[in-house]
Order: sequence, then structure tokens, then C-alpha cells
Amino acid sequence: MAEAGTGRRRPALSEPEIIARYFAPLAKGAPEAFGLKDDAALLPFGGDSELVVTTDTVVQGSHFHASDAPDDIAYKALAVNVSDLTAKGAEPYCYLLSLVLPHADPSWLSGFSNGLGEAQEAFGCKLVGGDTTATDGPLCISLTALGRLPRGKMVPRGGAKAGEHLYVSGTIGDAALGLQLSEEPNLAQQWGLDEDQAAYLTGRYRRPAPPVALASILRDRASAALDISDGLLGDAAKLCEASGVGGEIQSHQLPLSRPARQALGADAGQLASIMTGGDDYQVLAAIPGAQREVFEAAAAGAGVEVRAIGRLTGADSGLNAVDESGARLQFKRLSYDHFA
Amino acid sequence: MAEAGTGRRRPALSEPEIIARYFAPLAKGAPEAFGLKDDAALLPFGGDSELVVTTDTVVQGSHFHASDAPDDIAYKALAVNVSDLTAKGAEPYCYLLSLVLPHADPSWLSGFSNGLGEAQEAFGCKLVGGDTTATDGPLCISLTALGRLPRGKMVPRGGAKAGEHLYVSGTIGDAALGLQLSEEPNLAQQWGLDEDQAAYLTGRYRRPAPPVALASILRDRASAALDISDGLLGDAAKLCEASGVGGEIQSHQLPLSRPARQALGADAGQLASIMTGGDDYQVLAAIPGAQREVFEAAAAGAGVEVRAIGRLTGADSGLNAVDESGARLQFKRLSYDHFA
Repeated sequence: MAEAGTGRRRPALSEPEIIARYFAPLAKGAPEAFGLKDDAALLPFGGDSELVVTTDTVVQGSHFHASDAPDDIAYKALAVNVSDLTAKGAEPYCYLLSLVLPHADPSWLSGFSNGLGEAQEAFGCKLVGGDTTATDGPLCISLTALGRLPRGKMVPRGGAKAGEHLYVSGTIGDAALGLQLSEEPNLAQQWGLDEDQAAYLTGRYRRPAPPVALASILRDRASAALDISDGLLGDAAKLCEASGVGGEIQSHQLPLSRPARQALGADAGQLASIMTGGDDYQVLAAIPGAQREVFEAAAAGAGVEVRAIGRLTGADSGLNAVDESGARLQFKRLSYDHFA
Repeated sequence: MAEAGTGRRRPALSEPEIIARYFAPLAKGAPEAFGLKDDAALLPFGGDSELVVTTDTVVQGSHFHASDAPDDIAYKALAVNVSDLTAKGAEPYCYLLSLVLPHADPSWLSGFSNGLGEAQEAFGCKLVGGDTTATDGPLCISLTALGRLPRGKMVPRGGAKAGEHLYVSGTIGDAALGLQLSEEPNLAQQWGLDEDQAAYLTGRYRRPAPPVALASILRDRASAALDISDGLLGDAAKLCEASGVGGEIQSHQLPLSRPARQALGADAGQLASIMTGGDDYQVLAAIPGAQREVFEAAAAGAGVEVRAIGRLTGADSGLNAVDESGARLQFKRLSYDHFA
């Protein structure tokens, strides 16, 4: 046994390492799994369709606060799964819910059920199965969502090529700022936000709004996509790694909401949380040059804002973020990792 | 506000009440969901097949002990889901795993991965997707399993008719006795079990063995089925309620393992845990009289023991358990309810 203080510290495992080392071997020989390198599995479905299946869990303390309203918690649990379907180019179809509940409180359950109902309505899918279990620990909500798309049209994570353009949907960073505001309400004053602006940002943390209308456009126009859940830069790095390319993201091109611009103006250090904080649940997509015009027009027609934020490059250059002057931006970390 | 001690106690909600009240409305209009009254959803699949989708979560403290070996925990998580597929008449196809982990310990993860691998091998399915999240609370493993069967052949929970025969697969009660032994090792001596017998029973708690080979036989011969997870009597009551029938189960017909017979001989009170304790993960099926012979022969051919344990009756008589003399058996509860 090592003496206290002299033992070699066990290295922390990152989420990708855990998956690669302990779970990818279990998916060997299953073409549906893509080696667990994508956010979803792909199965045949009736007719000329395929089924995209994805699962994401939200845990009290990590993804929401115990004090958050149950309808918001429910809404978020479905939204983060629908977000994966959207990025794959699939329309939401149905979902299964596993609820690990500290206590079966009727008013909490009623709020939770209402929030799920609102999310179903917003995203166009229904509950088809589930499981309810008691726990002494924190609330966990595990959801498996199924989406449909035409055969052969799933948008992969790894299909991007050097020279293509990186686009994001919606606005970036709102949720990461909203999370800080919900933990430290005084920040609103520091950032010069009025009540509505602060509520907008916390609302984006509590109720993500994945751009479901973009799914059919992505599957026709994008060569690669994923949803931005852990942080723009980290998720962009995943897309680049899976595609064998590098990339450059221009911070001054990021689509920011008015409250986010206000916060960033008051505290330039918030650029890090905007670019690496996560919880956006917007789409990051690689669009070939020849598709840009029609992609932008189709997105506008569907009422989804999209913005080019950079280019894909050769793999050698890695993923870089640069400011307006072309200077490289350095951040402590690229994204959120549960185990880092 | 009510004064301490004078407030009306809020009635506890049972799991079926939670589902009926808060979740069934969210499945309205989704024929795939069967009103959330079954253990699975049914979706179209490629060709002439359908897909059965089920989700079950195992939580530390409820379904396993923190001290259980990680390979056993993993094995059980997959087995309890495969058990639902088997009862529906579906062959295991693939699964998604959501792991909520207190700490990313390499040796624990390695054991967990090995156990999943053994279970995959035993049940014939592969991992196709998942999610890993950190938690401050207990370990939760949420699994969504998908199974395949020919179109129109899913065995429902509610298809049984009065006069049909109730069968179970395997042996009943081993796991409920094994759970007690794992919590109170002294019971082995009280029950007169040698080390191997005690290990057999705890092994049945830790590694359920759903009779996957029975799936294709059930879909041709059974009018209704479900897996026995919460307790034989409670699960039989669910089958009866869904089918609009009553039933009678004869305790002396129950298939018991030799160690279970030994324990029951030493402590007649253990009949309650055998009949209501749960964790069997065997199948309870309704078999029409005309199908009995071929059902039994086919099960024997597949190497699965099945035993007739009673009959279905008119709905008026409810579900009853009787002993050899025909006297009714009364138990405090029919099965395990997480929230009761």
C-alpha cells in the first residue's frame, strides 16, 4: 500500500475515455451503433424509413437544481433528447421515460407531467413506455427518444470535409449564462441586465429549444452535425475528430442574444462560458460551400436562424477559436465533462 | 399550515397510480403505447417484423447492494430488461445504456463492462448507444432494450380468457430468498442450507436468468404473458386485471428449486416471500387448453422448464392463492411496490 501522500493519483477518466475503453467493445459487430462514436443508434423501420434512437439522462445537481420547477425539469429532459434527434436529421417520433424518484409527491408529479406534455406538444412526439423507481438519492430522469427519417439520410458526426463551413442554429451561450444567473442572481446587476433579460437567459437554461424544424434541412444539406450540449468548442472538436479535419471558429461571428451581448459587454471573461459552457442544445453543422445558399434559405423558410461561424480545415491545424483580429483564443477547457 | 402531528397524512401513491394519473395521459393517441398498461411499446420495423421497446432502471439500494460485484449489477440490469422482451415474445436485438455513476473507477467500470458482455452473450444482443453521467447520489442504471418479432405476434398482457391455464417458467422464489440471505447470511443456517445452496439462491437474486428461448414459443401459444418482477401474485393480478379475468394459483404446484424447498421446509412463513417477493424474472403465461400439450413439448424441446400453477376464472372471483386443501392463502401484500 502506498503511504498517504506518496501514492500515485489515479487519473480521472473522461467520458469519451470511459466509452472507448469500457463500452465500445460491447458494441463491436453492431453496425447500428457506429462504434458508440455518434450520439445515436440507427435501426431499420417500416417502409423506407429508419429509426434514430438516442438516450440522455438528466440528474439533479448536474443538469438541474432540486429547486427548479418540475415542469421545467421535465421539459428539459425531453428537449435534450430531441436535440440529438434533430442534429441527426430525424423527426421526433416517440420516447420512453425512466423516472428515479426520491418521493412520489402528487403536486410535483402533476407539474412534471404538465411540463412533459408541453414539451411533447412543442416537439411533436408522445410517451410510449417507461419505468418508475424509488430512490434515496437525487432525482434522475433517463429518457430514450426515437426519431424517424428516410432511409440512408442520417446526418453523421463524422462526415465533414476540409473547406466546408461551420454553422450553428439559434444563439449560443444563453444557457451557460442563465445557469450562472440562477446560481448567483446578483450577476444580473453586475451584467446590467433587467429582469426580463435575466429571465430570458435562465429560461434558456431551464427550457432548451432544439430547432426541430431544421431536421429535414440538415439531412439534405449537412455533411455532418451534432447538438451542442457540452460546449460549442468541445462539441466542435468532437465533430472535427470524428471527421478527421481541423477547424477555425471566429468568436465575433457567434450569434448572441441581446442579453448575452449585454453580459459579454459587461464582463469580457464570459466569452469562455459562452463558447465552452454548454447546455445550448442548438445544432452545429458542416455545410459544403455549394449548399450554403440553399441551406440558409431553407432554414429561414423554416423560421430557424442559422449563422456561419467558421470553416473546416486540414486535420493538422486542430480546432482553433480566433477573435476578429485573427488572434487565437485560449480557454482552460473546451467543454463540460462530467468526470473531468 | 397544519400543526405538527395534526396534518392529514398524504396518501402514498402506488406505481400503477402514478402511471395512470400522470403518465398515461401523455401516451394518449399513441397506439404504440397500449395506454402504458403493458411493459413495452410496439413499433413497426423493417420487413415483416415489429420492434418491442422496453425500459427498466435498477437503482442501488432498491435492486442491488452497493457492495454487489459490478459484473453482477451489470448482468442484472440487462437481464431485467430482456425479461420483458421474452414475456412479450420478442428476441433480444440491441440495447441502450444510461449510466449514472458516483465515481469513474476503472476497476469497477472494467467489472461492469465484463458483466454486460457476459449478459450480452447469454441473451444475444449488443449495446448500440448510451449516456454516462456523474452523480453525488447512488448508482442508477437505466437500460432500454429492443427486441424483434414477426408482425402481429406480440404477446399482450391483457389477452387471457377464463378457463385458460397459468404457467410459469423456471423456479419461483429463489431470488426473494437469495435477497434475504445476502442481507442476513445467518439465515442459511436457520434454513439448513449448505454453502452451495445458499450461493445458488443469492446467485439467482444477483443474476436473473430470463428464459429467452421461450419467446418464440410464447408468441405462438400464449394468449397473455408478463415477466414476474415484482412478485408472482402481484404480477398475476396485473395479468388478470388487464385481461378482465380472475384466477386461482395453487401454491403446492409452484416449481421450487431444491434450496427453496429446503428453506420453505424450515420456515413455512417463507411461502409469502416466494409468492410475493419478486425478482424472479421468469415468465407467467396464460395458455389455452388446446395449446397445453404443444406448449409443454416445445418448452421442453427448448430446454425451458414450464409448470402449470393454476387456472384463470371469471373476473368476479378475483385472484386467489390456495393451498393443497383448497384453503385460501392470505398475504400482507401481493408484490413489491417501490412507493407503497
